[in-house]
Amino acid sequence: MTVSFAAPIEKDIHRVESLIRSQAAGYHPDLGHALDLILNSGGKRIRPSLTLLVGRMLGISGRHLLSLAAAIELLHTATLVHDDLIDHSLLRRGMPTINSQWSTGATVLSGDFLFACAAKLASETDSIPVMKLFAKTLIVIVNGEITQLFSTHCQINREEYFQRIYAKTASLFETAAWSAALLKPLDDQQAESIRRFGYEIGMAFQIMDDILDFTGDQSSMGKPVGSDLRQGLVTLPCLCYIETNPQDPDVQYLLAGNCPGADIHVERLIDSIRFSDAVKIAHQEAQHYIKRGIDHLHKQPYSSERQSLEDLANYIVQRQV
Amino acid sequence: MTVSFAAPIEKDIHRVESLIRSQAAGYHPDLGHALDLILNSGGKRIRPSLTLLVGRMLGISGRHLLSLAAAIELLHTATLVHDDLIDHSLLRRGMPTINSQWSTGATVLSGDFLFACAAKLASETDSIPVMKLFAKTLIVIVNGEITQLFSTHCQINREEYFQRIYAKTASLFETAAWSAALLKPLDDQQAESIRRFGYEIGMAFQIMDDILDFTGDQSSMGKPVGSDLRQGLVTLPCLCYIETNPQDPDVQYLLAGNCPGADIHVERLIDSIRFSDAVKIAHQEAQHYIKRGIDHLHKQPYSSERQSLEDLANYIVQRQV
Repeated sequence: MTVSFAAPIEKDIHRVESLIRSQAAGYHPDLGHALDLILNSGGKRIRPSLTLLVGRMLGISGRHLLSLAAAIELLHTATLVHDDLIDHSLLRRGMPTINSQWSTGATVLSGDFLFACAAKLASETDSIPVMKLFAKTLIVIVNGEITQLFSTHCQINREEYFQRIYAKTASLFETAAWSAALLKPLDDQQAESIRRFGYEIGMAFQIMDDILDFTGDQSSMGKPVGSDLRQGLVTLPCLCYIETNPQDPDVQYLLAGNCPGADIHVERLIDSIRFSDAVKIAHQEAQHYIKRGIDHLHKQPYSSERQSLEDLANYIVQRQV
Repeated sequence: MTVSFAAPIEKDIHRVESLIRSQAAGYHPDLGHALDLILNSGGKRIRPSLTLLVGRMLGISGRHLLSLAAAIELLHTATLVHDDLIDHSLLRRGMPTINSQWSTGATVLSGDFLFACAAKLASETDSIPVMKLFAKTLIVIVNGEITQLFSTHCQINREEYFQRIYAKTASLFETAAWSAALLKPLDDQQAESIRRFGYEIGMAFQIMDDILDFTGDQSSMGKPVGSDLRQGLVTLPCLCYIETNPQDPDVQYLLAGNCPGADIHVERLIDSIRFSDAVKIAHQEAQHYIKRGIDHLHKQPYSSERQSLEDLANYIVQRQV
């Protein structure tokens, strides 16, 4: 890893990866293969980094913190395994997904295995509040996915968008930060500012993902540009474009209740959005979230870990747009 | 419910059902629908009954015990939802399965939701040992399913059979009993005898299920007679038949490494097994498990709950064969 926030926790991240890999020991060898596939897929480990840095900032270290960081990363990957199956995604970060190689049954079960390992690692924190938060977060994530699956496509609704990205992404960032704070007795205000830091940067992270869906490089993302809109998912760049270009005929088409699939409207709309100010406006919204997050972070006394957390937050909005 | 073991805990079982139903409150309405579908499918609630009776026998009552019993039942149903999807089962106990009505995606996610609710309810026991055991059990169950999915079909191997039914069924019976004992400080020997009781009757339960697959009524089971063998699963009645009829040409066919699918061999073999002594021999093995379980149970002082647990154990082997 070369990102600046990661340097002080590089060894701990390796320990977390070893801990994750060790979960498959004694079980069916293909489960180890699934874990390897996931660990080698080149994620930035941003969620466990968040957990480790918050923990260290609060003077927590050792086995409980490592178990927690591993649990967070595994919960994240478990949801990805089932998501990729549901979306029929064949690639993630340019690497083949589990469902592209295994049957539906094996993919469902390997996701379940990761959930189970995540629950086991969470229980190894020996903290009841952490385990309660962990289970609650899983419920929020799954409920968000079910809601998205059953909702009408092409909903043009800011409130619905922000609820969706909270469930999908920010809830786990919030938990990644907050749960580390729960490992230690803290006053409510201090824990709350850490929770808010996680929440705000998680919201920014998903907004950036939604921007990159329009502006990113197809080959590095492993999916075509504008794939959200093609699937009927109206994200922030599209909402901003609709608000600033209400007269665009393709926007009118959307506003009339149509949901462009693979037709001419969607191709034109994707091009219009990616070369418009809407991307910049959405990016500014992400930056506002980061700023609010850092304001909450600054309620903690200065430390090198606090600085790394600030770097991590800034890294989120500095990803190539 | 009319079974004798259930009478003293009828009210608690209703409370457990209400607690399960309440998990969907505030989430997507279709998740509530999934929970209703499961609760109305007419299970005997034998696992939560086991938890409640063990708890009461040890003088435990109240919220923690109810949460635990609900967690056990939900963990069981979550695995069924994913199992039915993987096996493409359209009916369970004569009722439509979730996968028969919903898409793959919605079925995967509703199973995940049930896992998440089970984890939340387990965390509401406020017991770290319970949560650890719970997560471990989920790993054992999922590992068993993966192993079964990836294993060669028609394995004729007693050891493999007993490992499989432990993972599939007995592990959760063991946890249903043992976890109730973990809610209270007990000496190791007492907890161990309760764990063994759960284990033994769980093994018997699955053997009985495997017998009923040959002898049961197709309409009440909601699947054709001999469906295990048709799927390449060699269960105890078949193992006993092979051992007592090594000269049967269909057995020879199996022993030669063939796996009968929908051919003439499988139909003849199913008929041979169901009308043979193999069923009685397998039933005797189930009764041995029950007897060992009751011997362990009798290490607890006599109480009306101990009697109900004995009734529950005997009920398992008295199901119509």
